[in-house]
Amino acid sequence: MKQKNNEQEVVGTIDQTFGSTRTHGLQLLLEDDAALWAPRAGREAILTCDWFLEGSHFVIGKHPAEAVGWKCLARAVSDVAAMGGEARCFLLSLALPTRLTGKWLDEFLGGLRRASKAVGCALAGGDTTRHEKVLISITVVGEVRRGRAILRSGAEPGDVIYVSGTLGEADFGLRKLLRKRGMGKSNDAALQKHFYPMPRLALGQWLAKKRLATAMMDISDGLSTDLPRLCAASRVGARIEADSLPMMALANTGEARELALHGGDEYELLFTVKKKNIKCLPRAFRGLRLTRIGKIMWERKILLRTDERKSIPLRSGGWDPFRA
Amino acid sequence: MKQKNNEQEVVGTIDQTFGSTRTHGLQLLLEDDAALWAPRAGREAILTCDWFLEGSHFVIGKHPAEAVGWKCLARAVSDVAAMGGEARCFLLSLALPTRLTGKWLDEFLGGLRRASKAVGCALAGGDTTRHEKVLISITVVGEVRRGRAILRSGAEPGDVIYVSGTLGEADFGLRKLLRKRGMGKSNDAALQKHFYPMPRLALGQWLAKKRLATAMMDISDGLSTDLPRLCAASRVGARIEADSLPMMALANTGEARELALHGGDEYELLFTVKKKNIKCLPRAFRGLRLTRIGKIMWERKILLRTDERKSIPLRSGGWDPFRA
Repeated sequence: MKQKNNEQEVVGTIDQTFGSTRTHGLQLLLEDDAALWAPRAGREAILTCDWFLEGSHFVIGKHPAEAVGWKCLARAVSDVAAMGGEARCFLLSLALPTRLTGKWLDEFLGGLRRASKAVGCALAGGDTTRHEKVLISITVVGEVRRGRAILRSGAEPGDVIYVSGTLGEADFGLRKLLRKRGMGKSNDAALQKHFYPMPRLALGQWLAKKRLATAMMDISDGLSTDLPRLCAASRVGARIEADSLPMMALANTGEARELALHGGDEYELLFTVKKKNIKCLPRAFRGLRLTRIGKIMWERKILLRTDERKSIPLRSGGWDPFRA
Repeated sequence: MKQKNNEQEVVGTIDQTFGSTRTHGLQLLLEDDAALWAPRAGREAILTCDWFLEGSHFVIGKHPAEAVGWKCLARAVSDVAAMGGEARCFLLSLALPTRLTGKWLDEFLGGLRRASKAVGCALAGGDTTRHEKVLISITVVGEVRRGRAILRSGAEPGDVIYVSGTLGEADFGLRKLLRKRGMGKSNDAALQKHFYPMPRLALGQWLAKKRLATAMMDISDGLSTDLPRLCAASRVGARIEADSLPMMALANTGEARELALHGGDEYELLFTVKKKNIKCLPRAFRGLRLTRIGKIMWERKILLRTDERKSIPLRSGGWDPFRA
């Protein structure tokens, strides 16, 4: 638990925490600056990386270290889930101030290890250094059967749009956290989805295996920001039915709808299915709700149908770090 | 050249700069959050990542943006060279303040692209965000023939220790840069190795192909810090001959020796060769000097032989970010 005064000790703590994790084809070279990994025959590697920065993505006095550890990996793995892949291993780039190399680091690594086990993704290596703020960059290496990855670019007019889960819960949790004083509690039910998002690996893999999704992505910046990205990649438009959104059961339905449309950090899957295939989709996949929310259109607009006769343009209300 | 006000514009600038780069088996998915990569049959993937942070690793007013771009990739690729591998593709995690998204970003990407071409390593993806300081984390994916990677752990007593190049030049350049006022010039000869290190890919691959090196690593934190790491991984000791070090030709030979022993940021290769194989090693490989500097010992000490009869313990004088 005590502070570390050299890089070897920090690396040693990481190695001790993850020592027992093993995965197919991965050779951990703790003494070397790199890992060796042998992908399985007939598979392609999925490569993705994600920032998770103190101040931008989490606050030391608000987010338990354990939740920071869980979430930094879960959100990066979500990009593998969104292609229908399996997560194999990850690299951890971690910078932190010396004063956080004791208890905070231990709890952070505890959460990271729990996530690593939950999603079946082993630590393969990384780089640590000192910095006045906590900086995390995670690279995830996944695998998918050759030619089976689901991209953003495959949606066609007439395809039906689906989302998994309930939208808005993570943002609702964040708002609650920001209103409260001090550290959020790890066991607070309202904060679960904000603290411990679960990448939808099983659903993504099932959709890829059954070749059901024509296009897919995860909702990380909010439906109203991410749906236009999927549509732009596919060169199509979309119309969402406001009444179909899987919203939270709040007293204020206006707030619930805003959260469902614009709430980020969800890590639910947004995907499109050919009309003839929608009969193959269950209402829930292993307990996870699947909801039909609209359809893909020729016309390259993103519309929200609010009632039988009225459709309005859906403005992007999600998060953009460079917005002036 | 103008400032960007949203993430899409920053990503667009990166895509434009790297648009034409292609490599074997790499499918760039610019619209997606991940890339697909198919390793060649019979090869293992080498996975490595490296921090490159404003303030710790470079200074905006001292290091030209172009050198920052070159060096962040070159030093990460050096870890692939140190295993005897080929660099295939990289992921760029980049955080920067909005005011640097114009000219600075363009020059940074120019240097990064030059390095990418020079080392044959294509941009596969990444993540960008805003931050008050420039933060860079690079993940490199390399390839090596299965079972041929050269690790740190293979050195045995009696093996001869070699280094490539001349040691101390990068640190000498850094000292010169810190003494001067203002920005270092990209064409200043003394600053070349500090600004534009060249990972020793061809040498590493040749040593792996010929099975000549029993252990290898790159010198990133200084010989006196990195040699003990190689020895610890191999559970051996070493004795270095002070008079054998490939030093700079400075008037002050004491300074030249200090630089050779402790100077970091070299990215030269440090490797060991069985005594019976040293006849296979040329004095220079494609113009790059190879120097025999000592030998591996049973006794787990790191010694410096300063004359015929005297050996002193070699203290680690390299850089450790967590040192109190």
